[in-house]
Amino acid sequence: MKYSIGIDFGTLSGRAALFEVGSSKEICCSVLNYPHAVIDTGSEYAEKLFGGLPQDFALQHPQDYLDVLSTTIPDVIKQSGVDPKDIIGIGIDFTACTMLPVKKDGTPLCFMDKYKNDPYAYIKLWKHHAAQDKANKLNEIAEERGEKWIKSYGGKISSEWMFPKIWETLDKAPEIYEEADCFVEAADWVIWQLCGKETKNSCTAGYKAMWNKKEGYPSPEFFAALDKRMENVIAEKFSCPVSPLGQKAGEVTAKAAELTGLCEGTAVAVANVDAHVTVPALGMKETGKMLMIMGTSTCHMLLSDEDKYVPGICGSVEDGILPGMIGYEAGQSCVGDHFAWFVENLLDSDYKAEAEAKGIAPQQLLAEKAAAIPAGKSGLLALDWWNGNRSILVDVDLTGMILGMTLATKPEEIYKALVEATAYGTRMIIENFNDHGVPVTGLYAAGGIAVKSPETMQIYADVTGLEIKISGSSQAPALGSAIFGAVAAGKANGGYDSVYDAAEEMGSLSDKVYTPNPSEKAVYDKLFAEYKKLHDYFGRGENNVMKNLKKLKD
Amino acid sequence: MKYSIGIDFGTLSGRAALFEVGSSKEICCSVLNYPHAVIDTGSEYAEKLFGGLPQDFALQHPQDYLDVLSTTIPDVIKQSGVDPKDIIGIGIDFTACTMLPVKKDGTPLCFMDKYKNDPYAYIKLWKHHAAQDKANKLNEIAEERGEKWIKSYGGKISSEWMFPKIWETLDKAPEIYEEADCFVEAADWVIWQLCGKETKNSCTAGYKAMWNKKEGYPSPEFFAALDKRMENVIAEKFSCPVSPLGQKAGEVTAKAAELTGLCEGTAVAVANVDAHVTVPALGMKETGKMLMIMGTSTCHMLLSDEDKYVPGICGSVEDGILPGMIGYEAGQSCVGDHFAWFVENLLDSDYKAEAEAKGIAPQQLLAEKAAAIPAGKSGLLALDWWNGNRSILVDVDLTGMILGMTLATKPEEIYKALVEATAYGTRMIIENFNDHGVPVTGLYAAGGIAVKSPETMQIYADVTGLEIKISGSSQAPALGSAIFGAVAAGKANGGYDSVYDAAEEMGSLSDKVYTPNPSEKAVYDKLFAEYKKLHDYFGRGENNVMKNLKKLKD
Repeated sequence: MKYSIGIDFGTLSGRAALFEVGSSKEICCSVLNYPHAVIDTGSEYAEKLFGGLPQDFALQHPQDYLDVLSTTIPDVIKQSGVDPKDIIGIGIDFTACTMLPVKKDGTPLCFMDKYKNDPYAYIKLWKHHAAQDKANKLNEIAEERGEKWIKSYGGKISSEWMFPKIWETLDKAPEIYEEADCFVEAADWVIWQLCGKETKNSCTAGYKAMWNKKEGYPSPEFFAALDKRMENVIAEKFSCPVSPLGQKAGEVTAKAAELTGLCEGTAVAVANVDAHVTVPALGMKETGKMLMIMGTSTCHMLLSDEDKYVPGICGSVEDGILPGMIGYEAGQSCVGDHFAWFVENLLDSDYKAEAEAKGIAPQQLLAEKAAAIPAGKSGLLALDWWNGNRSILVDVDLTGMILGMTLATKPEEIYKALVEATAYGTRMIIENFNDHGVPVTGLYAAGGIAVKSPETMQIYADVTGLEIKISGSSQAPALGSAIFGAVAAGKANGGYDSVYDAAEEMGSLSDKVYTPNPSEKAVYDKLFAEYKKLHDYFGRGENNVMKNLKKLKD
Repeated sequence: MKYSIGIDFGTLSGRAALFEVGSSKEICCSVLNYPHAVIDTGSEYAEKLFGGLPQDFALQHPQDYLDVLSTTIPDVIKQSGVDPKDIIGIGIDFTACTMLPVKKDGTPLCFMDKYKNDPYAYIKLWKHHAAQDKANKLNEIAEERGEKWIKSYGGKISSEWMFPKIWETLDKAPEIYEEADCFVEAADWVIWQLCGKETKNSCTAGYKAMWNKKEGYPSPEFFAALDKRMENVIAEKFSCPVSPLGQKAGEVTAKAAELTGLCEGTAVAVANVDAHVTVPALGMKETGKMLMIMGTSTCHMLLSDEDKYVPGICGSVEDGILPGMIGYEAGQSCVGDHFAWFVENLLDSDYKAEAEAKGIAPQQLLAEKAAAIPAGKSGLLALDWWNGNRSILVDVDLTGMILGMTLATKPEEIYKALVEATAYGTRMIIENFNDHGVPVTGLYAAGGIAVKSPETMQIYADVTGLEIKISGSSQAPALGSAIFGAVAAGKANGGYDSVYDAAEEMGSLSDKVYTPNPSEKAVYDKLFAEYKKLHDYFGRGENNVMKNLKKLKD
């Protein structure tokens, strides 16, 4: 029996899992919470290292990722009793864009004595939000110049992405910009530590660094228009070529073997992103199928042969999800967070007591009560914008709305309306793809909500009118990474020569399939028409009340 | 020293209070809960008397009102030790339209053996809602015929009023219609019991029975258009002339003296309505001043010299509030109810615990936390339509809305937004009066909220930009009734010859005056502009989503 390791680097911890090659069977797993966690304004390390940080900063320490490698890999080897020789490959997935400045040899600038107290020498985590003004300016200039590549990002790039973050560093800490030989995704940096050489994966390059398989990066003229000093940023700091997903990045070096307990020469896959790597973990490989990774927020991954302009999405990237296909990404910024907000702030004390008496979580009580209400019977309708709208309006300044309340409205009705609102949001995304020549014909779901909330999943099936298949693994990202590890090893070494073959054998679906209920669907069609009207009214400029209120608030 | 008694007949009890004439000093009071309470579908009497009642029925028993007279009046006499000879007058106020069918001598049909089990022989309480189809039909016919009087009611009359209720009886129980010599307001019936003869007060006649001082009632042709059998309803069943408020209805008869312990010959004032009678209790007598009686809902009373068409109000009636003036009535159907809904359904358990620890009511805790939030800082905006909109949209099918929520929104912010929404609703009513030639230049407030919630009252001052004076008496309706009792007695008997003189001496204001805070006002002006836009968008047909949702729900 051969094995592959997948490591899922999240926001707060790294989780390694060991899988059998040839099935989705997980042997064991090991988690390390990052010692420095997120270094933000409230963190003790912000004080220690920098004497404080502004509100919108979110940094990480690269040593934490090395600690994940040096503790979780030995741990799964030990737990499993597997001979490291039988571990044929390793793959990782990461949050993105989570990036850092490094020297030519891969040394993070923050490891250098002279920069260890400079926040710009550290890793900017995906949710570092201090580059919003740079993103705004970048979008403006791209639009003025008629840059074509911006269409791949639904017309707008985010402050969370690579070049706004680099531009912020150039602006605030030009010496760091100068000193850095490369700016790299943390995902690629970890792979570099394992196999001793730099690679750039097509997923983060495509979705977060404005790279396109056919056109490459934007032109020097564009970067010069941002800032003269950035004119040659690509030539100077992005010289490493981009590798498609499914490629082998290299092999575990002697040094990395010592760190991890893996054998020298073990195959290392090109890095990947947590949401994207989940697609093969469900065995998905068909065009037209959309995966929803549903947690605090939702990411939508869609496979297609068609490279179309779809406004309001996060990105469309060739080789971005699976090699040889166009991978579309969209997102909703407030899903589980939305329901948690309600439970945390507005949970009636009688309901809390009832949940305690039944020995279930309050949210479960609400979900059960909500499930007993037929579609339309609450009389309520909400817009799911408590955390802005990612797709398809790409507007962080939008806020939540709910209407239809009467003096008889009950908490479970409001709870249900919030769940329904997120389902309508997903249907907007689906219809937007359909309307722009990228049809969505089926749904898959992974993540905490997909696995734990059957009531929510049934509403999604009823609202979208599409069947929903559910991940068979509760650790789908780690499984996806292990699949890429097995592909990096190759068939000759007991793995696979293609991610499609690997996904076929190792991808896993639950037996549970959610099928739309036609009578609920018919009511939801009417409700969705009302949602859409309000979505456009409040979201497309007809009534900017949400923005006006936000301005007044600030 | 002379005294006057005011009795406030509410929905569930009658409350008599004895006041000194010449001041607002209350000597004592006495309350009787009606033994039959409200006879509705859940009531034991519904089963006993009628073998059940439909959902929308709300009846009362006239014996309960007699019991109020026979227990509370002797009780205040006894408590106070006042010689009944020194009680110079009595006045009452009532809910309206609360009406019953009676014989020529005042005997309620339900007192007759043959009708004691017929619900249509009983009193239909103001909130009896079984005549909605009749009201709709009546409004339709009035509009078709271009009836001018309907303009006095903002263009629409309510199912709660006199003629829809009579028409319902004619339709469902024609024998009761036939047998009734008169249909009377319960208020006028109680006065009849005290002084032995029928009177009709100009307040209920004007606001609830489509009577106008100049034009009288609608024409026989109009009533015939409703139902041929109603052609002569006015001649046959409304022959009693209408008396302006402030008149003496008569004197306590020997029989009534025996019932109440009052002296025979004690002056009895023409009946009045609870909201309307409150105006002189605050000493109000100027044009342009609006009184808000703020409880579960709010009634707005406005005095003016001008008889204008003001769309969306409840009514404008000459002599309707004070003799010689035009009294305008408007209303908001959901005020205290709105806040109570939030506390009853969405009170976070942490907040409940905090309120308990502080020994205050949860609503008080919310109000205090809300008061610490400056205008605009919540980023929230609500429409106060949880119970439909009375004025100025007159639409029971509208529902609540709130927007601006983020993941950081706190319960006290939502609570404050609900309070603000009711204040915006009041400002809409004020601006509607201003826009139609009846300027509002100052505010007065009475009722539970006015007395108990300084935080709410300050918001109303800040939102409207008007100073608000507060009732000095917590029993303003009873005081108002006692004022009319003293006027009925007349100056020669130690009372007053005019309600204006009486209001001057006996009306009472609190020392507390709420003054607009200019900086809050400036923010509220902006928020109100947003409210108004949404009010019109959802309320005037541009987006009928609330009605569509309600249809789906039903």
